Amino acid sequence: METIRRTKVVDILKRTDFGAVVNVKGWVRTHRSSKAVDFIALNDGSTIKNVQIVVDPSKFDENMLKQITTGACISATGVLVESQGAGQASEIQCSEIEIYGLCGSDYPMQKKGQSFEYMRQYAHMRLRTNTFGAVMRIRHNMAIAIHKFFHDRGFFYFHSPIITASDCEGAGEMFQVTTKNLYDLKKDEDGKIIYSDDFFGKMTSLTVSGQLEGELGATALGQIYTFGPTFRAENSNTPRHLAEFWMIEPEVAFIDKDDLMDLEEEFIKYCVQWALDNCKDDLEFLNKMIDKGLIARLEGVLKDSFVRLTYTDGIRILEEAVSNGKKFEFPVSWGMDLASEHERYLVEEHFKKPVIMNDYPKEIKAFYMKMNEDGRTVQGTDVLFPQIGEIIGGSVREESYDKLMAQITERNIPMKDMWWYLDTRKYGTCPHGGFGLGFERLILFVTGMQNIRDVIPFPRTPKTAEF
Amino acid sequence: METIRRTKVVDILKRTDFGAVVNVKGWVRTHRSSKAVDFIALNDGSTIKNVQIVVDPSKFDENMLKQITTGACISATGVLVESQGAGQASEIQCSEIEIYGLCGSDYPMQKKGQSFEYMRQYAHMRLRTNTFGAVMRIRHNMAIAIHKFFHDRGFFYFHSPIITASDCEGAGEMFQVTTKNLYDLKKDEDGKIIYSDDFFGKMTSLTVSGQLEGELGATALGQIYTFGPTFRAENSNTPRHLAEFWMIEPEVAFIDKDDLMDLEEEFIKYCVQWALDNCKDDLEFLNKMIDKGLIARLEGVLKDSFVRLTYTDGIRILEEAVSNGKKFEFPVSWGMDLASEHERYLVEEHFKKPVIMNDYPKEIKAFYMKMNEDGRTVQGTDVLFPQIGEIIGGSVREESYDKLMAQITERNIPMKDMWWYLDTRKYGTCPHGGFGLGFERLILFVTGMQNIRDVIPFPRTPKTAEF
Repeated sequence: METIRRTKVVDILKRTDFGAVVNVKGWVRTHRSSKAVDFIALNDGSTIKNVQIVVDPSKFDENMLKQITTGACISATGVLVESQGAGQASEIQCSEIEIYGLCGSDYPMQKKGQSFEYMRQYAHMRLRTNTFGAVMRIRHNMAIAIHKFFHDRGFFYFHSPIITASDCEGAGEMFQVTTKNLYDLKKDEDGKIIYSDDFFGKMTSLTVSGQLEGELGATALGQIYTFGPTFRAENSNTPRHLAEFWMIEPEVAFIDKDDLMDLEEEFIKYCVQWALDNCKDDLEFLNKMIDKGLIARLEGVLKDSFVRLTYTDGIRILEEAVSNGKKFEFPVSWGMDLASEHERYLVEEHFKKPVIMNDYPKEIKAFYMKMNEDGRTVQGTDVLFPQIGEIIGGSVREESYDKLMAQITERNIPMKDMWWYLDTRKYGTCPHGGFGLGFERLILFVTGMQNIRDVIPFPRTPKTAEF
Repeated sequence: METIRRTKVVDILKRTDFGAVVNVKGWVRTHRSSKAVDFIALNDGSTIKNVQIVVDPSKFDENMLKQITTGACISATGVLVESQGAGQASEIQCSEIEIYGLCGSDYPMQKKGQSFEYMRQYAHMRLRTNTFGAVMRIRHNMAIAIHKFFHDRGFFYFHSPIITASDCEGAGEMFQVTTKNLYDLKKDEDGKIIYSDDFFGKMTSLTVSGQLEGELGATALGQIYTFGPTFRAENSNTPRHLAEFWMIEPEVAFIDKDDLMDLEEEFIKYCVQWALDNCKDDLEFLNKMIDKGLIARLEGVLKDSFVRLTYTDGIRILEEAVSNGKKFEFPVSWGMDLASEHERYLVEEHFKKPVIMNDYPKEIKAFYMKMNEDGRTVQGTDVLFPQIGEIIGGSVREESYDKLMAQITERNIPMKDMWWYLDTRKYGTCPHGGFGLGFERLILFVTGMQNIRDVIPFPRTPKTAEF
């Protein structure tokens, strides 16, 4: 007999050439048996939907059929027919089954309704469940949307280095990277560890941000974006923090604050629109099972223009709210860093739409942000979202060498390893700006999941580096 | 006066609405002055081509014009006109210049014809040169081609972890990742360093490959690909090795050896075709300046089907060549690992086209490769290319738990941290396979560059982690 080439489940469910002999391969989600007929729901990861395999038990070996339990991997061949049952258009009248792999009753994803916490211990197997299949397909789609958005607009994907010898941004605690023999650490006369014999001849760490290198790219290639892993060695055991996460950092030459805010808004709306257009089945599942407000919230983001609000106006609104009786845990005053409760008040209660806050007090922002003429505020441009607060952190960069150096001096930033960054302001400096988006924060927003450990395949957190 | 919105150079060169007032911004490549007219060649990184700014010196301040030297950053407004000169269709009759940033004569990319070795010291500035602009735009395009290829075929982009607690593949020396205080290393009674107080509670390293985690993805989602940084702490100072490089590792459930070889060939041809279709200007420049055989070699790869050759037949051909007088540095015999000279003989001299070699002796391949029925060879599927040798390393994976364990035992591979990998063979195992492509190897091939340090923005090699 001629071998029938496999059709993926996502494709078989679209086929209407009933009567054709087809083959599907995948993992058994459920197997219901009765005297007259067996139903096997088969999934191959290509879609959240299963294909139903209808088996006449009189035509198969009874013991073989018994072995086909949840989690088993099989190949099934048969005739594609219109389904009589509700909830599916087609099913397969099975004529042949090949078992690739059985699955014992100790299969960790055996039962339905297990907690996410339980499933995290089996992160390699949770990928086979409905929820994590949906999350991972959406994650893929968000990555594709990001590349397409930037490519279509003439940005170049730029690989900033992962191992770095500089920690200037001070974005967070860093992981040390070394090949030194820790049992034989050479030290100098003052007892300081010598790094000349380390792999790179100096102390090195994992990057906390590709922005500074991204600026090198933008001031040469015009518009770039990074999309790579970044690291924070912070002992934060929260549903919002990972030690290893992916960041997107576009950087653009010749952009001003208004254009930068336009870019941020266009970008994030594009991603959300992409999810609605390309992840319908997965979103509907998550909307039903995880977060009933999910799709409405995604659509809500697209409806209106984002509010553009200066920090100073934002503080005024918050102060007004306080004077009208609103209670915040942290007091409101100009110069403070907004807490999540303040951001959410502005976005969820006051404006009821996303806010791009800008012109922050310089003291609460990084040294490289462009100073406004008032000498007090800098051109930061953060996007605040419902539910998750800050989703994008952006700014116009200070392009003046003298002003940048003044900030570096004022803040005592060690610049000895940063000569190359200053060179961009020394040789043909140009106005430029950019932003950063934590990829997993975006996935949280788009999936409605609550814990950041559940939107990356294998989360790295304090005391956890399994798989 | 109304501000004219900037047009990128790549777009201005396509415009034919002569007479329009336009604005361009960028960096000065050359500035030639004469009494009657100044010509400024301006580049903004969007293309390898410059736009010519024609300046009537009588209409501008003489000292201002003098300051506009190579490397300076300016904004120029004027009328788009048809060019009288050769080599360009249009130019700008300049009416207004704004200087964003001057550029001193100590600008490191001042002169033409500097060596690549010199430029590596200024990797942040070399991005502004023709060669590195071309390489980085091609690099971007190859990344986009890769994502598009896999997305269009229903693969999911899968982020395998960077920090890992397992070193099983033994692909190479690893970098240690730690937050331990090296000045106060706690040890146990036997003098062994205790890692329970390290960030992850155990010893961790940077990944050498995402394949094993990729297999977890493929056996759940069906088809995945990774595209991320990988690391080797090998003290290799060669033009072919980086300590930090990017890898693409697709992994596919339900694939057999023939389909895998089809996928490899289709994939690499797609990337090369994409470069020819989308990077014409940059390739023509590199073909002219770097490697006169480049475009012919790229077209050559697309012309025919790749040769599919078993290792055993390959050895036979090499032995025949030796008996006909061909001299190799390393002797040829069945069981040996092919050296670069052997690969290149087969590809460049014998077949004159790419070769997919398969069915290798198990001793020279990794433990996870599927054993053939002969018990001696495994289903490896490596793609050998002209000039660079192995560009893809692939294999069908051993899906049988027992056969896999036999190899693990035979090879004494420490599996204590690898229970999750074995679970894929325990719970619903399935036939699957995949391959790995070193991204920078692909860029070397597609650009004709000779040194791998010159196809990544900021290379990490022994004693070098600058920028």
